[in-house]
Amino acid sequence: MLKFPLRAIDVARIVGGEIEGDENFEVFGIKESESAGERDLTVWNGKDRINDKVGVVISNQRPHISFSAFIKVENYRLALAKLLEFFEPKGRKFLGSPIIEDGAEISESAVIGPFSYISRGAKIGENVVIYPFVFVGENVEIGENTVIFPFVYIGWGTKVGKNCIIYPGAVIGSEGFGFERTEEGWVRIPQVGRVVLGDNVRVGANTCIDRATFGETLVSDGVRIDNLVQIAHNVKIGENTVIASQTGIAGGTKIGKWNVFAGQVGITDHVKIGDNVVILAGSGVDRDVEDNKILAGKIPARERLEFWRCASLFFKLPEIYERLKELEKKLK
Amino acid sequence: MLKFPLRAIDVARIVGGEIEGDENFEVFGIKESESAGERDLTVWNGKDRINDKVGVVISNQRPHISFSAFIKVENYRLALAKLLEFFEPKGRKFLGSPIIEDGAEISESAVIGPFSYISRGAKIGENVVIYPFVFVGENVEIGENTVIFPFVYIGWGTKVGKNCIIYPGAVIGSEGFGFERTEEGWVRIPQVGRVVLGDNVRVGANTCIDRATFGETLVSDGVRIDNLVQIAHNVKIGENTVIASQTGIAGGTKIGKWNVFAGQVGITDHVKIGDNVVILAGSGVDRDVEDNKILAGKIPARERLEFWRCASLFFKLPEIYERLKELEKKLK
Amino acid sequence: MLKFPLRAIDVARIVGGEIEGDENFEVFGIKESESAGERDLTVWNGKDRINDKVGVVISNQRPHISFSAFIKVENYRLALAKLLEFFEPKGRKFLGSPIIEDGAEISESAVIGPFSYISRGAKIGENVVIYPFVFVGENVEIGENTVIFPFVYIGWGTKVGKNCIIYPGAVIGSEGFGFERTEEGWVRIPQVGRVVLGDNVRVGANTCIDRATFGETLVSDGVRIDNLVQIAHNVKIGENTVIASQTGIAGGTKIGKWNVFAGQVGITDHVKIGDNVVILAGSGVDRDVEDNKILAGKIPARERLEFWRCASLFFKLPEIYERLKELEKKLK
Repeated sequence: MLKFPLRAIDVARIVGGEIEGDENFEVFGIKESESAGERDLTVWNGKDRINDKVGVVISNQRPHISFSAFIKVENYRLALAKLLEFFEPKGRKFLGSPIIEDGAEISESAVIGPFSYISRGAKIGENVVIYPFVFVGENVEIGENTVIFPFVYIGWGTKVGKNCIIYPGAVIGSEGFGFERTEEGWVRIPQVGRVVLGDNVRVGANTCIDRATFGETLVSDGVRIDNLVQIAHNVKIGENTVIASQTGIAGGTKIGKWNVFAGQVGITDHVKIGDNVVILAGSGVDRDVEDNKILAGKIPARERLEFWRCASLFFKLPEIYERLKELEKKLK
Repeated sequence: MLKFPLRAIDVARIVGGEIEGDENFEVFGIKESESAGERDLTVWNGKDRINDKVGVVISNQRPHISFSAFIKVENYRLALAKLLEFFEPKGRKFLGSPIIEDGAEISESAVIGPFSYISRGAKIGENVVIYPFVFVGENVEIGENTVIFPFVYIGWGTKVGKNCIIYPGAVIGSEGFGFERTEEGWVRIPQVGRVVLGDNVRVGANTCIDRATFGETLVSDGVRIDNLVQIAHNVKIGENTVIASQTGIAGGTKIGKWNVFAGQVGITDHVKIGDNVVILAGSGVDRDVEDNKILAGKIPARERLEFWRCASLFFKLPEIYERLKELEKKLK
Repeated sequence: MLKFPLRAIDVARIVGGEIEGDENFEVFGIKESESAGERDLTVWNGKDRINDKVGVVISNQRPHISFSAFIKVENYRLALAKLLEFFEPKGRKFLGSPIIEDGAEISESAVIGPFSYISRGAKIGENVVIYPFVFVGENVEIGENTVIFPFVYIGWGTKVGKNCIIYPGAVIGSEGFGFERTEEGWVRIPQVGRVVLGDNVRVGANTCIDRATFGETLVSDGVRIDNLVQIAHNVKIGENTVIASQTGIAGGTKIGKWNVFAGQVGITDHVKIGDNVVILAGSGVDRDVEDNKILAGKIPARERLEFWRCASLFFKLPEIYERLKELEKKLK
């Protein structure tokens, strides 16, 4: 794990950039461009405000400011990703032991924290890190290099791919919400399918992914899911789709690849969303969506009285429309 | 726990249906009607696409396809419920022991997992199953046959009825959100009431039900709550109401029986909702609602430019209305 | 911990009020004004329905009903806060021991429950109460008197102030949602900043506060956050702001002091919200907001057919507007 101070030349080597200026200049911290000072490192996107004097700047374009060193890179976001990786704590070990039922297969290189419970039939791959307080159900498979944070529940039969990260409090493979109405009350329809997560999947904190009624709830390779998201039973999500916080996807909906859903989106059950679809924050989607569409659906907030005046006229739209047509007729 | 292959006649016995065709025909899996093949079992609703050749079909109507056996039932959803029950793992036991404080009463038939904590004064009924990682607060009562999944918090004084299922990460009886403003900041109003769950209540994963300021937050018999739902302090919910994911109900609101709230609904504080009310996804309810109403309240998402054009005219509605009235006056 | 029955005079002493009537009158419970009876205590706001005969009434105005004692106070909500504090269980101790890594500093007066895990470098202040099932990451600081409920995750480097309460299932300092698109998929941008919570902060159940990319996600002194709220990376929240349930605030947004956000609000990334702003339930904020504004943004639910008629005309607004202008032209 890298620590400040860092020399400009060492930063340049990490991010694979070309250096201009004082190679041996030392920076003592990393800051956003508008607050970075003479002893700081910053990553600049070429647009945001940047101070007049910054220690070391990483960017894809030379800034018109005073710097001690400038590191030119092709993609400043990827450079940032590379750099920050060195600041993360690595190689987490824990004190104490988990409980492991007979018949679970744990690879030797896996790290499993204390206060974790691994059920029979589970298979834990190479280099998996399971933090304390993880419940792994029966016959769960977890692929190599996957990291699972505390308070994660993984229900029986779930398959988690390689290189996944599952953040704290996520619930994967809990029961789908299925009932049949009878006069005495709702009869539970047991959900005996499973959840399958591909490789490189990210599941955010306190997100819920329900098991299928039967068959699979599928989250494909490379999907990124933020916190507090709901994925209902039998949903299928294609590769590399990104789902921001508090979005909910109802049962049986099929979603394509490379979509981007912003926060608080809702998608109804049993619809099909294509590929490369963008859905803006707060939108409610109630029908199929074709490839490459960009959808919006939330009226933005305004000053209370203005909004309410418009909202009350919203409920007069049928009347407004009728009066308009009436006028048109008279004018003819 | 039942396993495939299964003979048609055995399936018919389980679901209580009349069989036509090859009673001894064996199926090797259960699939949705559109993907079920010659060796599969499916449950058909009479409308969805179904393959030309399916092994065994359960339905309330004879399908016009080729099958090896057809099992006629009155209600195919209830038949499905009965059948799937046999595919669930049953009789969960755990390795290791919980911590139980002095003065907790645990029935002999209850199963309590390791890494669970049962506080003094708690009463745990017959055949209750408490998974690992459950916190049961002081003086909590849990009725017979109830199942509580990992990472569930049950705050002091909570009463949970019989035959309930509480899914992972649910927080029941945490403090309600009550404050009084002062010049120095917000003063917390301690919430000393409790949560009462009736019998046959379902609480979804990561759902929160807050304790009452005083008195009770009440969830009546047969209520079904999905994941990530917020039930605030002093809310009362009548029997058999269904609440889908990410819905939020604010403090003190009273909700009747047999309602169905779809996902991401919001209901404001201190309103009354009648019986048999349906509220469609994403709706915000800000007033009392009478029995048998079906409410909607979310403008659906559309292609971004179309939506924004309309949304910007939404804020011109007062002007549009004035101009319309002006025209009407002139025409007179 | 106080218990009923209580004498009127004792209640008056606790809330610091002036008593009129029978000082020795005993009440057996506390109820809301509309359900309180002859043997009950109630706190009355001067507006709500109140029974004809109530045992003891606390209020800032004399009620025109029959009572045994009336306790006059300046602020009935603060009186309620003072009173209810005496009904809360206090001084929680636990059976069993946590796991504490070498190099964690735990003050002697701190209580740490069993099944909790404290990582190296953590500093736990005086009188802190950590329930069972808490994960405290490396180098976390927790200020005096703070209470942390079960199933809370506190990620490495997080700073929690004094007198905070963190409710069950909250996730503080999990990784922010940051990626860079490449042809092969999304590259994770490691989030190496931290979360800083000031003093007197409240974090609700299952709420998520993400660590900053670098620098800090900041929740200032006195902020009150309800359940299931999402605070993304690098958000800054000013003092005494209140955030109700299921609200989401996207990355980098700066929020002032003394704001009140109702439930299910969404605020987009990188905007600035001033001080004393109120945002009503369900609103989506997509731009900067000045001080003292009251924003609304959700069309309320109505009977389904009425809503849908209006919603379909919403998408005809551009046409309506054009036809209106046309008419105006013709009339000239």
